[in-house]
Amino acid sequence: MDRLNVVLVAARNPLNIGAAARAMSNFGFSRLRVVNPYAVAFREAKSAVGAEKVLQDAQEFKSVAEAVADCTLVVGTTAIGNRSPQQPVHLLPAAAGEIRRRLQTSPVALLFGSEKWGLSNKDLSHCHWLLHIPARKEHPSMNVGQAAAVCFYEIARAAAERGTREKVRRANAEVVERLTMTLLEALQESGYINPRSEGLAEEKLRRLLRRLNIEAPDGEVLLGMVHKILWKLRREKS
Amino acid sequence: MDRLNVVLVAARNPLNIGAAARAMSNFGFSRLRVVNPYAVAFREAKSAVGAEKVLQDAQEFKSVAEAVADCTLVVGTTAIGNRSPQQPVHLLPAAAGEIRRRLQTSPVALLFGSEKWGLSNKDLSHCHWLLHIPARKEHPSMNVGQAAAVCFYEIARAAAERGTREKVRRANAEVVERLTMTLLEALQESGYINPRSEGLAEEKLRRLLRRLNIEAPDGEVLLGMVHKILWKLRREKS
Repeated sequence: MDRLNVVLVAARNPLNIGAAARAMSNFGFSRLRVVNPYAVAFREAKSAVGAEKVLQDAQEFKSVAEAVADCTLVVGTTAIGNRSPQQPVHLLPAAAGEIRRRLQTSPVALLFGSEKWGLSNKDLSHCHWLLHIPARKEHPSMNVGQAAAVCFYEIARAAAERGTREKVRRANAEVVERLTMTLLEALQESGYINPRSEGLAEEKLRRLLRRLNIEAPDGEVLLGMVHKILWKLRREKS
Repeated sequence: MDRLNVVLVAARNPLNIGAAARAMSNFGFSRLRVVNPYAVAFREAKSAVGAEKVLQDAQEFKSVAEAVADCTLVVGTTAIGNRSPQQPVHLLPAAAGEIRRRLQTSPVALLFGSEKWGLSNKDLSHCHWLLHIPARKEHPSMNVGQAAAVCFYEIARAAAERGTREKVRRANAEVVERLTMTLLEALQESGYINPRSEGLAEEKLRRLLRRLNIEAPDGEVLLGMVHKILWKLRREKS
């Protein structure tokens, strides 16, 4: 349970921050990370009933990349709605099982977006897959605090009914992100990427590399390869 | 779903009334009954985002007895805490199953108490049994809106589980092998591979790329990337 990092991205509403923290405390999760919260909202939230400890220990980050760096599985929550998601979507009961399995060996990040906009496509590009709480099609958008409570309940629920332990150790988000940025540079150097569509290319590349589910030792090897290639591309040019 | 009556007893906080109604709407429940709400709170709650319909159709009652009159099963929610309950307590996952079974034939009432006191012993005396959401012993008391969301999710869940998962198509061996050989060439060009241990490097690279379990479209993209990089490495050299 101590390996689950709850990440609130750009939270604007103190009631929702407090509610998420309270639900964490109810279900035994303690690690809260906030990315770019409104300072006022975050200060106000600290008085949420029964969530004082979680909020006091919360860590602040400037970017999603930093907030998830040590995690080997990054999951974004989404109501889907009008956006057609670029990543696989897992429904909650099954998703909770996968999260639990990974928690037995390494840290996992579970991202929640702002009340108004949810997670942006850029935020989502850091995720291996998306979690969706099955709700009514006509009204799938849940309150953040309630969505968080449902997720924590489901993840904590069968903590006792231990599943099979995952044997493979995955590369953490920091390594995968370094691989992403280095490969991006190599692709720029090689002319693969059109400068005008660079932002889009970055998100696409980020999603692609997360889909590969790279194992920890392979991550280091791939990083070494791409570094060398990049070095060579630059040296030949000069 | 239409046979579940959600009964809020002596609700004092408009945010919680609104939150409960919103969660009902999210999970497809429409019948809200309120017993002795604070008039002001109830009026304010009516503007809860996405819950207008549920709140407009809500029925008001003067007593729990009247509110549950037409139901064949009455279930009270409780955090237990210090009170030793006088009735059987069922934990949520099992409780939801029993509620679902009964809903197939007749109306069921699910009671939630006020934020401060929960359901009184008198309220509870109307219940056949009590529902408890398993939470941390040191902090079992949940926010009403969140507890409601978790209950509705669990009761509605069975329907969602029928959903099929999209099957992922993986890149075929031919593509992965072409990717392997092209990347190998790029690594040779860049000096990453020591010529003396080339055979070993090739096998390692082949195994590594198989472990990635590349999806079909990603295989083509990666192949394009590596081709371009290789082309650039060669052109710069000459």
